[in-house]
Amino acid sequence: MPAHVQVVGGGVIGLACAWELARNGHEVTIVAPAPGRDGASRVAAGMLAPVTEAQFGESALTALLLEGSRLWPAFAAALEGAAGCAIGYDTTGTVTVALDASDRASLDDLLAYHHSLGLRAQRKSASACRALVPALSPAVRGGIEVPGDHQVDNRALLDALVQACRAAGVAFVEGTVSAVDPGPGPELVLADGRRLGPGLVVLAAGAGVPAIAGLEGAGLPTVRPVKGHILRLGPQGGPRAGSAPLLTRTVRGLVRGHSVYLVPRRDGSVVVGATVEERGGDTSVQAGAVHELLCDARAIVPGIDELELLEAAAGLRPATPDNSPRIGWTGTDGVVAAVGHYRNGILLAPLTAAAVVDLVGRRPLAPLIEALAPA
Amino acid sequence: MPAHVQVVGGGVIGLACAWELARNGHEVTIVAPAPGRDGASRVAAGMLAPVTEAQFGESALTALLLEGSRLWPAFAAALEGAAGCAIGYDTTGTVTVALDASDRASLDDLLAYHHSLGLRAQRKSASACRALVPALSPAVRGGIEVPGDHQVDNRALLDALVQACRAAGVAFVEGTVSAVDPGPGPELVLADGRRLGPGLVVLAAGAGVPAIAGLEGAGLPTVRPVKGHILRLGPQGGPRAGSAPLLTRTVRGLVRGHSVYLVPRRDGSVVVGATVEERGGDTSVQAGAVHELLCDARAIVPGIDELELLEAAAGLRPATPDNSPRIGWTGTDGVVAAVGHYRNGILLAPLTAAAVVDLVGRRPLAPLIEALAPA
Repeated sequence: MPAHVQVVGGGVIGLACAWELARNGHEVTIVAPAPGRDGASRVAAGMLAPVTEAQFGESALTALLLEGSRLWPAFAAALEGAAGCAIGYDTTGTVTVALDASDRASLDDLLAYHHSLGLRAQRKSASACRALVPALSPAVRGGIEVPGDHQVDNRALLDALVQACRAAGVAFVEGTVSAVDPGPGPELVLADGRRLGPGLVVLAAGAGVPAIAGLEGAGLPTVRPVKGHILRLGPQGGPRAGSAPLLTRTVRGLVRGHSVYLVPRRDGSVVVGATVEERGGDTSVQAGAVHELLCDARAIVPGIDELELLEAAAGLRPATPDNSPRIGWTGTDGVVAAVGHYRNGILLAPLTAAAVVDLVGRRPLAPLIEALAPA
Repeated sequence: MPAHVQVVGGGVIGLACAWELARNGHEVTIVAPAPGRDGASRVAAGMLAPVTEAQFGESALTALLLEGSRLWPAFAAALEGAAGCAIGYDTTGTVTVALDASDRASLDDLLAYHHSLGLRAQRKSASACRALVPALSPAVRGGIEVPGDHQVDNRALLDALVQACRAAGVAFVEGTVSAVDPGPGPELVLADGRRLGPGLVVLAAGAGVPAIAGLEGAGLPTVRPVKGHILRLGPQGGPRAGSAPLLTRTVRGLVRGHSVYLVPRRDGSVVVGATVEERGGDTSVQAGAVHELLCDARAIVPGIDELELLEAAAGLRPATPDNSPRIGWTGTDGVVAAVGHYRNGILLAPLTAAAVVDLVGRRPLAPLIEALAPA
């Protein structure tokens, strides 16, 4: 039975949920301050990286990320069709490199862990890495090739989702939700006093969740903001016909123990990220973080020195205590959670949206998803 | 006899000349694409530094810079009075520090040179430097205190000059001069086809001079653009009452052979500069230059890491082969040059403006100024 659903949040999770719900016949409203234009999704690199994001002790999360990755090709094709524009979905694969001997040892440990989980990743000599990525520094000590870690242009993705939502009849309300007024048909209270609803609520407000009142009984974990700085670099004077791009695949690096990544876009620009900082809700761009990113990135790809600094920005990843999202009906009547995606919001957007459609349709969930239900 | 004078250029030199000419009874028009809002003057730090800018082999230029500095207190007072706003003129003095032993040795050589010219500068131990500037890195090896090197807020200065010019009746024409049409009363040809004049011409177009046609017989030296990047940093979340500023005086540094400076403003912000790059007329902001500035600046003042990156920009200093400006009547009838100020445009603005008033009034010049006449 079609429902009226109010999606709180205009980042990649909120937009993907809204689009999928609308495609499945529901009547959907998105409520967010600036749908598709703010929040962590916009300040992301768009890596779809189940393998290179696999961390020791998080094998359940890794299984989820792999399942999320599996849904991407069909999701990308459907979205590009619905929106009528490209989203830069790119399956070239990723190389992770080590700068010094200690970084090389850490990378070898990680590779052994990847293999213990059955993940596809292959040790590469320094010269083999340079064959894949000619712009690598001669100092690089070798690395790992990961064919299954891909990328999407996160900003093109957000724009496409907004288009697709509009085409599917989703209504957009610009505003900040300050409270959920619970009940069998919960209402939303906006910061400016407006009330919306009643209707089911899908909570997809990222790092904004803790500021929403009325969710005391929802059983949500603490969601805390984890600040990340990124840089956007580009060829001097813009893209030029005939000149080769600096990079043609995503390069990640361990640089004296720091993680850094460089994600090339089709227009010749490169996204460099990302710091991981526990600093509360501040999104100012700090000199020290910009220095750290440039320092680590140029250590593995010195050619970035010649690129133009187009943008420096910071976003807030919504992190839970176990780094795993919560997707499911909450303890608050009529409220579905789609929160806490931390570093994996873009990768998990198709999976989350599909799960939310199943939840709203009261269909059974796969055990992998069922395990994400709020306590 | 009052003349009609057309000043080409809306940077600090053009504005200062226009204001002084108008104050002296001349009828003045400024022609520039965006007076006070573009060019090298806006992307400057505003150091007034005859001593710390004194280079080996440039003692004549140093004498000029000292004379330029001598005119500043009266110029600043008159300008603030005429414009009705403050320009951040600050005579606290400068400290130059050395990061490593080799930098310390270079600084000692420079200090001996300063003393040979009779300049005021005093060797300071590392702890004496830290007593003057508590935010200095513990790694700093000592330095030099230079009480006579001061600063002005270059953007406040430009705004004040525009105000003062308007108050004095200067006319502003927004446009780019593409040619001087010579003659006893030269005319200006603008890029959009407009013609201005006839009237005397004061050429103060900085790095834009080589693009102006009709000056073949002027006897001007080659003026080439020397790119400089600067950063503007500020306290996170803006200036806060009760919190102490990171710096209260200008700090210059030699950092493994690189020169860097940090100039604090009254609002708590800090200007960090500057690269010196021969790259033609490009003003894009490059990742490598931003890295270099941050790297060198944080080596001597680590606390900048916590500041917000407010702006990164690049400008083009107008340099002559001998680093000295040309001020005087050119070989082209009716055209006065005020060009080639390289790194010292702000410092030399009052001196240049006074000289131009004397030139237009056909009064005799001091030998120091006469030596700057175009060949």
